[in-house]
Amino acid sequence: MSMRRITLLLLAVLWATIAGAQQTLSLKDAIIGRYTYLNPEMPSQVIWKDARSYIMPEKSGLVAFNLKNDEKQELTNIKILNTALLKVQIPPLENIPEIALTAPNRIQFTHSGRILTFNTDSREVEQQLVVPENAENTDYCRATNQIAYTVGNNLFIAGKEITQVTNDPNPEVVYGQSVHRHEFSTDKGTFWSPEGNFLAFYRNDQTHVKDYPLVDYMTREAALKNIKYPMAGMESERVSIGIFSPATGKTIYLETVADDHYLTNISWAPDEASIFVFELNRDQDHLLLNQYNAQTGKFIKTLFDEKSKTYVEPTHPLLFSKTDPDKFYYLSRKDGWYHVYLYSTSGGQIRQITRGNWEVTEILGFDPDEKNLFFEATKDSPVERHIYKIGINSGKITRLTTEPGVHHGLLSPDGEHAIDRWSGTNVPGRIDLVSSKGELDRTIFTANDTMKDFDLGENTVFTIKAADGKTDLYCRMIKPNNFDPLKKYPVIVYVYGGPHVQLINKTWHNDIRGWEYYMASKGFIAFTVDSRGSDNRGKAFEEVTHGRLGIVETEDQMKGIEYLKSLPYVDSDRIGVHGWSFGGFMTLNLMLRHPEVFKVGVAGGPVVDWGMYEIMYGERYMDRPEENPEGYKNSNMLNYIQNLNGKLMLIHGVQDDTVVMQHSMKFLQKCIELGKQVDFFVYPTHPHNVRGIDRVHLMEKISNYFIDNL
Amino acid sequence: MSMRRITLLLLAVLWATIAGAQQTLSLKDAIIGRYTYLNPEMPSQVIWKDARSYIMPEKSGLVAFNLKNDEKQELTNIKILNTALLKVQIPPLENIPEIALTAPNRIQFTHSGRILTFNTDSREVEQQLVVPENAENTDYCRATNQIAYTVGNNLFIAGKEITQVTNDPNPEVVYGQSVHRHEFSTDKGTFWSPEGNFLAFYRNDQTHVKDYPLVDYMTREAALKNIKYPMAGMESERVSIGIFSPATGKTIYLETVADDHYLTNISWAPDEASIFVFELNRDQDHLLLNQYNAQTGKFIKTLFDEKSKTYVEPTHPLLFSKTDPDKFYYLSRKDGWYHVYLYSTSGGQIRQITRGNWEVTEILGFDPDEKNLFFEATKDSPVERHIYKIGINSGKITRLTTEPGVHHGLLSPDGEHAIDRWSGTNVPGRIDLVSSKGELDRTIFTANDTMKDFDLGENTVFTIKAADGKTDLYCRMIKPNNFDPLKKYPVIVYVYGGPHVQLINKTWHNDIRGWEYYMASKGFIAFTVDSRGSDNRGKAFEEVTHGRLGIVETEDQMKGIEYLKSLPYVDSDRIGVHGWSFGGFMTLNLMLRHPEVFKVGVAGGPVVDWGMYEIMYGERYMDRPEENPEGYKNSNMLNYIQNLNGKLMLIHGVQDDTVVMQHSMKFLQKCIELGKQVDFFVYPTHPHNVRGIDRVHLMEKISNYFIDNL
Repeated sequence: MSMRRITLLLLAVLWATIAGAQQTLSLKDAIIGRYTYLNPEMPSQVIWKDARSYIMPEKSGLVAFNLKNDEKQELTNIKILNTALLKVQIPPLENIPEIALTAPNRIQFTHSGRILTFNTDSREVEQQLVVPENAENTDYCRATNQIAYTVGNNLFIAGKEITQVTNDPNPEVVYGQSVHRHEFSTDKGTFWSPEGNFLAFYRNDQTHVKDYPLVDYMTREAALKNIKYPMAGMESERVSIGIFSPATGKTIYLETVADDHYLTNISWAPDEASIFVFELNRDQDHLLLNQYNAQTGKFIKTLFDEKSKTYVEPTHPLLFSKTDPDKFYYLSRKDGWYHVYLYSTSGGQIRQITRGNWEVTEILGFDPDEKNLFFEATKDSPVERHIYKIGINSGKITRLTTEPGVHHGLLSPDGEHAIDRWSGTNVPGRIDLVSSKGELDRTIFTANDTMKDFDLGENTVFTIKAADGKTDLYCRMIKPNNFDPLKKYPVIVYVYGGPHVQLINKTWHNDIRGWEYYMASKGFIAFTVDSRGSDNRGKAFEEVTHGRLGIVETEDQMKGIEYLKSLPYVDSDRIGVHGWSFGGFMTLNLMLRHPEVFKVGVAGGPVVDWGMYEIMYGERYMDRPEENPEGYKNSNMLNYIQNLNGKLMLIHGVQDDTVVMQHSMKFLQKCIELGKQVDFFVYPTHPHNVRGIDRVHLMEKISNYFIDNL
Repeated sequence: MSMRRITLLLLAVLWATIAGAQQTLSLKDAIIGRYTYLNPEMPSQVIWKDARSYIMPEKSGLVAFNLKNDEKQELTNIKILNTALLKVQIPPLENIPEIALTAPNRIQFTHSGRILTFNTDSREVEQQLVVPENAENTDYCRATNQIAYTVGNNLFIAGKEITQVTNDPNPEVVYGQSVHRHEFSTDKGTFWSPEGNFLAFYRNDQTHVKDYPLVDYMTREAALKNIKYPMAGMESERVSIGIFSPATGKTIYLETVADDHYLTNISWAPDEASIFVFELNRDQDHLLLNQYNAQTGKFIKTLFDEKSKTYVEPTHPLLFSKTDPDKFYYLSRKDGWYHVYLYSTSGGQIRQITRGNWEVTEILGFDPDEKNLFFEATKDSPVERHIYKIGINSGKITRLTTEPGVHHGLLSPDGEHAIDRWSGTNVPGRIDLVSSKGELDRTIFTANDTMKDFDLGENTVFTIKAADGKTDLYCRMIKPNNFDPLKKYPVIVYVYGGPHVQLINKTWHNDIRGWEYYMASKGFIAFTVDSRGSDNRGKAFEEVTHGRLGIVETEDQMKGIEYLKSLPYVDSDRIGVHGWSFGGFMTLNLMLRHPEVFKVGVAGGPVVDWGMYEIMYGERYMDRPEENPEGYKNSNMLNYIQNLNGKLMLIHGVQDDTVVMQHSMKFLQKCIELGKQVDFFVYPTHPHNVRGIDRVHLMEKISNYFIDNL
């Protein structure tokens, strides 16, 4: 044995000893710990007090920091707050709550069923608004200190007294709640006007939507819980928009066409005289921005329309200019990428502000005279987010954040600074103060690396070419712990692949799920590729899957397989795949379209046939079944079951109201008819995702399936 | 090598060659074939023409055989029948149908939605009664050529015209259908009086019974199918009995008490003036035989009552004497065994006719002057059935059948002969003519041995002692094919163990399921023991489990395990268990009460908690949950899940309306909560049992589970 070999051997022994001293990630650490006790602690919020100071909770106090001299000033603390609460007979706080600053000496927070306003000078609770106990969908109006809420299907407002806005005895007609199954970024159902003089709200007539039966098995005798679930091609919700005036107690409805269409992203004009609604036809290929008179409900005009051969997807309401109430900013993907446009309500488009083969992911705001727009974007990398400033007239872009990672900004009132909350591949979490000139002012907070003592597999992000031969696809690979390049390892592909999701980002540990590290510790390579169809890569990248979900995504996943097979340490005979929801659909696609490659698969809450998915999402990507029979057929997993060769397990939440149980049931039935063995498990109390402590059971089941069979 | 060794080796090679020439039982053969293409063919029916001849289908003809000289006479054939049918424009028959002989020259059969009467002399269809297409629960009255039937929840009669007997718009009130979930041997809901002048029927008010939601997932969008499922301790059905007179069109109701009780085994008096009803209290421990006036519904009197500390279970209606209409025969287990009693409607019990530690399983009839009663019984062996004659006055018993096996008889009109349809361990099927003196007259038909070319494991029946140390329990063991006593074999226990079922009987192949042979061919020993609690062994044997289902049965099963472990060729570390329904419950009992023994289990449609089982069966064996909380707790499998150690799979039919899905769901949920891994599968379109071709998939899944894990 040469000296060199002996040295290497000694080093290996030494390394193994060090490695041995490191902790092994348990399944509980990976699944629960990663998001709780192993999650790097960060201040719950850091906000601007004014242009010269910011507020951060510190220990039990709420502290303001002066930007100039770093001087600290305690605004209040939990003892003072609890003394004030005791005076008005409200139970004490346990921690500093999340607050809003409504005046330099006024903080507002929600506690014990109330919205409370506390004066930091007088140290007294100045105002309290009681939120009824059974209230849901609460929407607070700061201007008038009122709160809109729903009880059952009806809408109420609580202020000095309680006003019942609607009183419909039919539970299938729902008021003040999100519509269109939360698609089109409608996650709420009430919209206060800027001064709080009006409340716009959705009315959702679901009487024509079929009931889908869910069953609660945990009661004494199993109980029915119907939900309204409109499936692709079937009758849909009938939505309209009401406007209630608390002053008159009267409601008018906008005279929108009674057609089968979507009303989304409601925006109030600054003067409250009119309201703007994005109206999208059921085919989702023609979008109108319509203006209505807020007093009469009458249609005023269409400001513009957008058409597409595939789909138009409105995702943001209008953002009105603070300097010129006739102007508004609008985030649209109409040139193929999400960019910001400036419009005039009277004269149409004024200017495209941002431009390029990248996407604006968030508008952060403006400096006070609206010379500059601040935003987050993928400009420097699709797997990073940075904060940028652009001159609205000049188009000159300045990047405010420097270090690689995913940055989220909170702009200061004067537009001179941003609080930058971010993490990076090796950065568990940091809060920086950055200047609008693109300089790091100071670091406010650095999170501890909670995973540093764990023995984790090597985690890398890189690109491969998509099946089109030209598009870059981002990949993430975790090598097994104690990786030996001379060995052969089995691979688990973790997949999603559907719209609106991007699995790989340069957040801490490259956005990995703890489970991937866990499986790496069990000797598996964990591999993921964000195929075409996934998020933040522009319209063309996404819509290439239109009308044929699963096909292009599978082709791209197979490029990942091609890459894996090229690696000397990959055991090509032992490749498995796991995904949930769209990822469950993709798991089925891969298992059934490529039985020669995939030996083991676990499909969670999988879509099997898009004809059983809901109208809003389903028809956006697949059109209606009668318009696209060939596409539905080719994307229907039931038509590929005869190819099933490997070990496949389906898992479904019995309470799943997103991808309903029917998908798995029809899949199993077809397997039975074709004499194909398949495995199945259910989580009786869980909806589309298995969360909480039961998730450890789920992931143990999935892990065992790969360990036993792959 | 000695000559002897060489000879043995040669013999072994020779034997292997012969064995190799035999067929191997495929799973399809075992599961489907055994009951279809491998089922020994037997004539569909052999009936008496008169005391001197019997009728049997032969080829395409219906042939009468003379007892004396064996002369054959063709009564009719399919060609003649089809010619007659063509004349009256009814589609042709494909095979000779099952018939009833209503006169020496008249046969009656059901065909093409009609009840047809054919004259074998005139060769014409003499009478036809059209049964409405949507009719269910049909009940034909030969005396008047009318048919009672139900459509939806209501009751109708079709004769020359259609009469609607009930017209209740509430679908939860059901007329003319079986009640009490078919417990208490009530498998029908209409009862024609002897001359057909009245129709008695059940009225079942289920408005207070909770709905249990079943879901059909095979429709376009999953559809709810509520069933009425009254769970132990909950509100039950409210049943009454109506009597309809077709002559007057009027219905009266019997004035039974409106209490929570069971009305069963309705019997008409021969003169149609009164009707007899067994009335059992909800506690099922006090039975009354009540007589009511059939014209007025008024209560006449209670003839007798029966009480029990456990339960009384009426299973047979009264059988009125043909020679003295005041007398009736009654089959009761009141002395601890099912025996026949003679009663007078005016004077109470006259005589116990049969007696002994064995059970009458069927009354076949009498000779014309009712000197002798003919019956089937377990007198000679609990795992055989023979036909016996007893002198009603003398008590002298003659056994008519000689060969070991399970015999079923059809008595000749003069009581001199019986047609004996039977099979035995090595007899696939035979039809004999036996004389009332106990002699074999002749063999009419011998079925072919369809399994003779298959290589099957050795199948033996023997007894062991129960856990009480004294009761004999019957066992059946199948040794693996090519059994080698020097090897160690894994065991699969196939279990049921609940009331009303006996798995071991000396029918062909000892009543084995094909699957047991299949598993034996895969190298497993298949073992079954009929524990205490199972059928045909008397009341004490059955009721020892009362109030504590699963406990005694498990103790007895463990005696089977003790026996198995005593065998040198049993691998005690590899014992598995499978059962369905009560057998699924027992599988859970064995896996959870004896995790040290059972390594692998598959529980199909298992009862988990008797509180979720239906009132009628559940409360009979377990009382009400509030009466027997300790018993329910001790029999509740949810309370033993912490013991789970082996590999356990639950399987459930999604449409199961007997043991509802809730059992499995609560079991899985508790496993999840306790962090116990368990496997699960469902059959989406199947009710309590998976039948038809899908059963092959089921049994392959179960087989694989043992092959992979045991």
